[in-house]
Amino acid sequence: QGILERLDAGEIVIGDGGFVFALEKRGYVKAGPWTPEATVEYPEAVRQLHREFLRAGANVLQTFTFYASEDKLENRGNYVAEKISCHKVNEAACDIAREVANEGDALVAGGVSQTPSYLSCKDKAEVKAAFRKQLEVFMKKKVDFLIAEYFEHVEEAVWAVEVLKESGKPVAATMCIGPEGDMHGVPPGQCAVQLVKAGASIIGVNCHFDPDTSLETMKLMKEGLQAAKLKAHLMCQPLAFHTPDCGKQGFIDLPEFPFGLEPRIVTRWDIQKYARKAYDLGIRFIGGCCGFEPYHIRAIAEELAPERGFLPEASDKHGSWGDNLSMHTKPWVRARARKEYWENLKPASGRPYCPSMSKPDGWGVTKGARELMQQKEATTEQQLKELFQKQK
Amino acid sequence: QGILERLDAGEIVIGDGGFVFALEKRGYVKAGPWTPEATVEYPEAVRQLHREFLRAGANVLQTFTFYASEDKLENRGNYVAEKISCHKVNEAACDIAREVANEGDALVAGGVSQTPSYLSCKDKAEVKAAFRKQLEVFMKKKVDFLIAEYFEHVEEAVWAVEVLKESGKPVAATMCIGPEGDMHGVPPGQCAVQLVKAGASIIGVNCHFDPDTSLETMKLMKEGLQAAKLKAHLMCQPLAFHTPDCGKQGFIDLPEFPFGLEPRIVTRWDIQKYARKAYDLGIRFIGGCCGFEPYHIRAIAEELAPERGFLPEASDKHGSWGDNLSMHTKPWVRARARKEYWENLKPASGRPYCPSMSKPDGWGVTKGARELMQQKEATTEQQLKELFQKQK
Amino acid sequence: QGILERLDAGEIVIGDGGFVFALEKRGYVKAGPWTPEATVEYPEAVRQLHREFLRAGANVLQTFTFYASEDKLENRGNYVAEKISCHKVNEAACDIAREVANEGDALVAGGVSQTPSYLSCKDKAEVKAAFRKQLEVFMKKKVDFLIAEYFEHVEEAVWAVEVLKESGKPVAATMCIGPEGDMHGVPPGQCAVQLVKAGASIIGVNCHFDPDTSLETMKLMKEGLQAAKLKAHLMCQPLAFHTPDCGKQGFIDLPEFPFGLEPRIVTRWDIQKYARKAYDLGIRFIGGCCGFEPYHIRAIAEELAPERGFLPEASDKHGSWGDNLSMHTKPWVRARARKEYWENLKPASGRPYCPSMSKPDGWGVTKGARELMQQKEATTEQQLKELFQKQK
Amino acid sequence: QGILERLDAGEIVIGDGGFVFALEKRGYVKAGPWTPEATVEYPEAVRQLHREFLRAGANVLQTFTFYASEDKLENRGNYVAEKISCHKVNEAACDIAREVANEGDALVAGGVSQTPSYLSCKDKAEVKAAFRKQLEVFMKKKVDFLIAEYFEHVEEAVWAVEVLKESGKPVAATMCIGPEGDMHGVPPGQCAVQLVKAGASIIGVNCHFDPDTSLETMKLMKEGLQAAKLKAHLMCQPLAFHTPDCGKQGFIDLPEFPFGLEPRIVTRWDIQKYARKAYDLGIRFIGGCCGFEPYHIRAIAEELAPERGFLPEASDKHGSWGDNLSMHTKPWVRARARKEYWENLKPASGRPYCPSMSKPDGWGVTKGARELMQQKEATTEQQLKELFQKQK
Repeated sequence: QGILERLDAGEIVIGDGGFVFALEKRGYVKAGPWTPEATVEYPEAVRQLHREFLRAGANVLQTFTFYASEDKLENRGNYVAEKISCHKVNEAACDIAREVANEGDALVAGGVSQTPSYLSCKDKAEVKAAFRKQLEVFMKKKVDFLIAEYFEHVEEAVWAVEVLKESGKPVAATMCIGPEGDMHGVPPGQCAVQLVKAGASIIGVNCHFDPDTSLETMKLMKEGLQAAKLKAHLMCQPLAFHTPDCGKQGFIDLPEFPFGLEPRIVTRWDIQKYARKAYDLGIRFIGGCCGFEPYHIRAIAEELAPERGFLPEASDKHGSWGDNLSMHTKPWVRARARKEYWENLKPASGRPYCPSMSKPDGWGVTKGARELMQQKEATTEQQLKELFQKQK
Repeated sequence: QGILERLDAGEIVIGDGGFVFALEKRGYVKAGPWTPEATVEYPEAVRQLHREFLRAGANVLQTFTFYASEDKLENRGNYVAEKISCHKVNEAACDIAREVANEGDALVAGGVSQTPSYLSCKDKAEVKAAFRKQLEVFMKKKVDFLIAEYFEHVEEAVWAVEVLKESGKPVAATMCIGPEGDMHGVPPGQCAVQLVKAGASIIGVNCHFDPDTSLETMKLMKEGLQAAKLKAHLMCQPLAFHTPDCGKQGFIDLPEFPFGLEPRIVTRWDIQKYARKAYDLGIRFIGGCCGFEPYHIRAIAEELAPERGFLPEASDKHGSWGDNLSMHTKPWVRARARKEYWENLKPASGRPYCPSMSKPDGWGVTKGARELMQQKEATTEQQLKELFQKQK
Repeated sequence: QGILERLDAGEIVIGDGGFVFALEKRGYVKAGPWTPEATVEYPEAVRQLHREFLRAGANVLQTFTFYASEDKLENRGNYVAEKISCHKVNEAACDIAREVANEGDALVAGGVSQTPSYLSCKDKAEVKAAFRKQLEVFMKKKVDFLIAEYFEHVEEAVWAVEVLKESGKPVAATMCIGPEGDMHGVPPGQCAVQLVKAGASIIGVNCHFDPDTSLETMKLMKEGLQAAKLKAHLMCQPLAFHTPDCGKQGFIDLPEFPFGLEPRIVTRWDIQKYARKAYDLGIRFIGGCCGFEPYHIRAIAEELAPERGFLPEASDKHGSWGDNLSMHTKPWVRARARKEYWENLKPASGRPYCPSMSKPDGWGVTKGARELMQQKEATTEQQLKELFQKQK
Repeated sequence: QGILERLDAGEIVIGDGGFVFALEKRGYVKAGPWTPEATVEYPEAVRQLHREFLRAGANVLQTFTFYASEDKLENRGNYVAEKISCHKVNEAACDIAREVANEGDALVAGGVSQTPSYLSCKDKAEVKAAFRKQLEVFMKKKVDFLIAEYFEHVEEAVWAVEVLKESGKPVAATMCIGPEGDMHGVPPGQCAVQLVKAGASIIGVNCHFDPDTSLETMKLMKEGLQAAKLKAHLMCQPLAFHTPDCGKQGFIDLPEFPFGLEPRIVTRWDIQKYARKAYDLGIRFIGGCCGFEPYHIRAIAEELAPERGFLPEASDKHGSWGDNLSMHTKPWVRARARKEYWENLKPASGRPYCPSMSKPDGWGVTKGARELMQQKEATTEQQLKELFQKQK
């Protein structure tokens, strides 16, 4: 059954977690470029992560094609070990995802994300051409549906949806925005409307914000659609980091990004709360983005097991709400084998010399730079380099 | 070259990270039992983790035989999917470790850990028999050397070392103790002396405490050996969690153990500091335990690259001190591409409603239970169950 | 010179601090009732506090007549040591304030605040009668001007202003509201407009919120007046507690109110920042409310000394920015004798087991009660008692 | 009845709180010099504070003669408004304390504290002469007993006790040390023994550390006396600041000292716990030092009211455990009118950008300076100035 048949039937569809962060920690993706050439270089590592998400309960395996547009790979090429063609990276990604999907009950979704071409003000045709190049591979490799994700500007997201719709396959579209809306100031409700009008059947948010903030944005998107009397399925794939302190551009601007985010990592119990809230809000495509490890995805599947009627495979290695602690030799550890305990725990950081919140960067001294970027007037690497030199 | 040749030559040997925690998050180990039957059930997952540690720079691959003594597997058998023989688990562990070790320059170490037999007051012969059963597999599978690790009582650790020494192979021994010493009150310095006298060539600590606390314990061990005019190589494999607030029995007693430890996870920069301090203290076998992911091991290898003269393979996907951020589109993110930034960052938890430290459990209401256990008078499951009932 | 002459001339007028909190700590006011019968019982204690604020730089001494309306004193009478007539309390307050004001250059302001009559839905005439009773004393005692302060509902504040205006004296009016507006949902900008239209020459906020939040509300009030093309002097007297986490009704709903607020107390440096920001926003009547001790008022006067041209008397016992530490015997304490040090210090709480923020009460389980109260349907003591019984 | 008669009879004696910190906030003492010339300049302010402590339950009023030795007043003279003779300051202090003591049931204690003469290595005779000068005033003014307090070196404390004993009056002696002992490394137990042998009838600690740490030190002192088979009454007057993070020299070295300590201020409930613990440890002279405001002293008196059989006068303005909140209009505030609520509250700081602990200064870069000072080789102002110049 396809993605729309499932969602139309009221099924809960569970997404997968974040590849670039998980594989960075495993040693296969380089932070900074964040490109997915590992599909060619280290296919067994990518395959293993897909398999873990599948076992954890994911019904959708996204091809590991984040930032795999030709312009991005080109742009970042100097920073990765070896240049590998866009075509190869995308093909390998499709093959690996399909191989693992066949091991269980999962759909393969081909994914595109925002492009450097857009940020450097290339015209619509050029930006669309970049998406089309990836789409060709997805069609050849017969993915089940398509996802346009991680867009900061609704204009570019609409272009992506338009291209992906050419395929005739179902299209989902998620933006990496918060309640304040896209980088040009378009509010979430309007973003949702534009994406649906462009042809997306499933819309929502991914990345950049924590589960709570992302659900706030989802609420605004839902209200926008209702006000416009439009219908679409809702989808949410947030960070697995607590980011109550971040600004409009999300976790990128937090001083801890990307190498000091550990104390912000959410627990499995945080995810169970997220899954329940997302469900209650009417979202039926529930997954994760950066920071989501397989056990976080399993937490979604376990929380919604009563509604779905079954547990994921990986629950053979997990007791619900810590119940396997009931066999511990210490009575006070056994006392943790219950839902109330984990639901109410306020976990300590073990870091008494650290604060609990940070001020995001980029909203003070460098405000000029930020405004310029938002106006798309300083978007080439070269211009930014000069700008930053001046600011120092 | 064997482990002692390397250490005697002054080489830095890098250990691997924690299997049970990493594989629990990946969906292959059950928290509570913490047993390694995945070696038989999901060998590709175990193989992949070994491979990631190897790529990260580990020179030693420990067989995934933690808690794989027959009595433990028996004891925990009801909680895992399927009973698998002790023999099979240990054999598979050796095969997988050797297969991956052959992909690079690494030694295979067979490992034993503390047994339920000891805790339930079985006699010396019976406890030793349990270790000997595992040792037979290690000999058959020709591991390079042996590690007795995760012992709370030096008495049992000494018994383990005595058994392992029967093999003629080099023996390392690490205890999961802090500066207060073992559960019978033997201080670290004396533990070190007893282990060396029993035949261990390498001694130290693993698990239960964070890097800083573990290095404090190591200091006491080193001083103990010096006072006794004994020589041994030093080895340290701590947690990758900040635990300044834990008591004598380490992180087990923290309210966050084991499902709410996320905010305590150390950063790669914390590990670089740990590696440097460990080196300065004279420790030459430096690795990690629970919480250590491949990128933490890589951080050890990168910190000590000047001394070792080379970077690990996985550094092809990692810029030193964040230097790949220098190509980010935002100037304020580019400004993070330097050592001073990450060294001095005090990362926020994003959890303003949580404290920074916890009071350990098990030191108040349940003190009676704890004392009984330490006296080894209430060690059967049944007795503890009754005791705990009474306390409620 | 009167208050309006000073403000019209562009002078900065410094208010005094909080009497009920300061005198509660000194042992002369009872938390809960918060009534000012100390003016009769312990005049020397009230006089001393006035004197300290005068020395600290206050240009206005407010009569200690908070909650001194007849209905309030009646209502709270059972809880204080001895019933003392409303008339006596107000008279004594005026006498003490005038006595101290004559020791320096300060005006005396007679103050009224919100009444139980309004909350229990008495009609306009009855509420106004309560204010008029206090006003009679203020007229007899010849106060210099009048302040209607601590109003949660603009409707009642307007009634108070109307009564006070009958005197012919200048009237200031401040509400204890935040950016969300009054308890009936009237936004700050509209509150400001209504107060000015009712006859207030000076408007603003006092109490309930920290300096930063209060300045946000002031900004909205200022914008409201500008939009309505009205003119009035601006006045701000916030809490001296950090309350970034409080809801619409301010610090009353924080779990720490009123006996656990210590970790939230602001430093003198926080106040210097507040004074500067208030000045930059165009506020010229700058003082404090609950939590403000004499040294906080002095911090306002010191920050604005360059603009005013003089330091307050109490600065004879205070070095600017810690400069008296320069004579300390320890070099590292001497190193604190500079502005940059104190401006940038992030002071620790010394409480690692406590969180940094709290969830306000009264917005969950007791939501029904709160809504009822806001609808003024459950406002008698008796009704609330019953309601609360039901909720338990 | 004298102090010893009371203590010998098993009575609980309540001390007063901290004058220099309280009067600094009120505008009468200068931080840095911390000298008590206010006894002459602003006697009504000193009188009022004495009166508040008396009302709060203090049985002992200490003359405000902290740092009032001639050498100190001389040394700090350049920093205070006007030079006032040592003789006058001490006389005025005695007069004011006696005047207030006569208003109730309190004893007057004349106090001396450590001297610059000792720190700059003057000989025993010279240091003793400084104490004797103050003692002359105390004798003339007929104080009830004497306290030698705030000594960092037991040697100097012993000299002080020896001088005070010449008077024939009872002598108490408290040191500002923690569990690590005095600045020359003498442990608390030995300090206690030396003080008793020198003639002190009451011994203990004051200042520098929080209540918990101070009680730890008291325990060591008590054990020292027991081991030496000596008897003395125990006395404790700690800080009213949480300082779990400070080093050997106490809160002086915390980065927040003295102008950023607000988030560390203890609540009245913290003090009730302290009073109970102190009582349980056998301490019968229980008071406070820097940070203790009148309401903190009242909290001691209220906690120990069951043992003493009466409440202090100021409890006419204080409901036990918040019980006056039971008349609040909001049900959720009324719900705070109970002991369990306040006992268990973990108060938030309202400061999410601040840490919970600090690293003390003076233990790193300036270690050389500290060691020199401890060796008393760099103790003149001049030497330290040069040293500090070099370090910068």
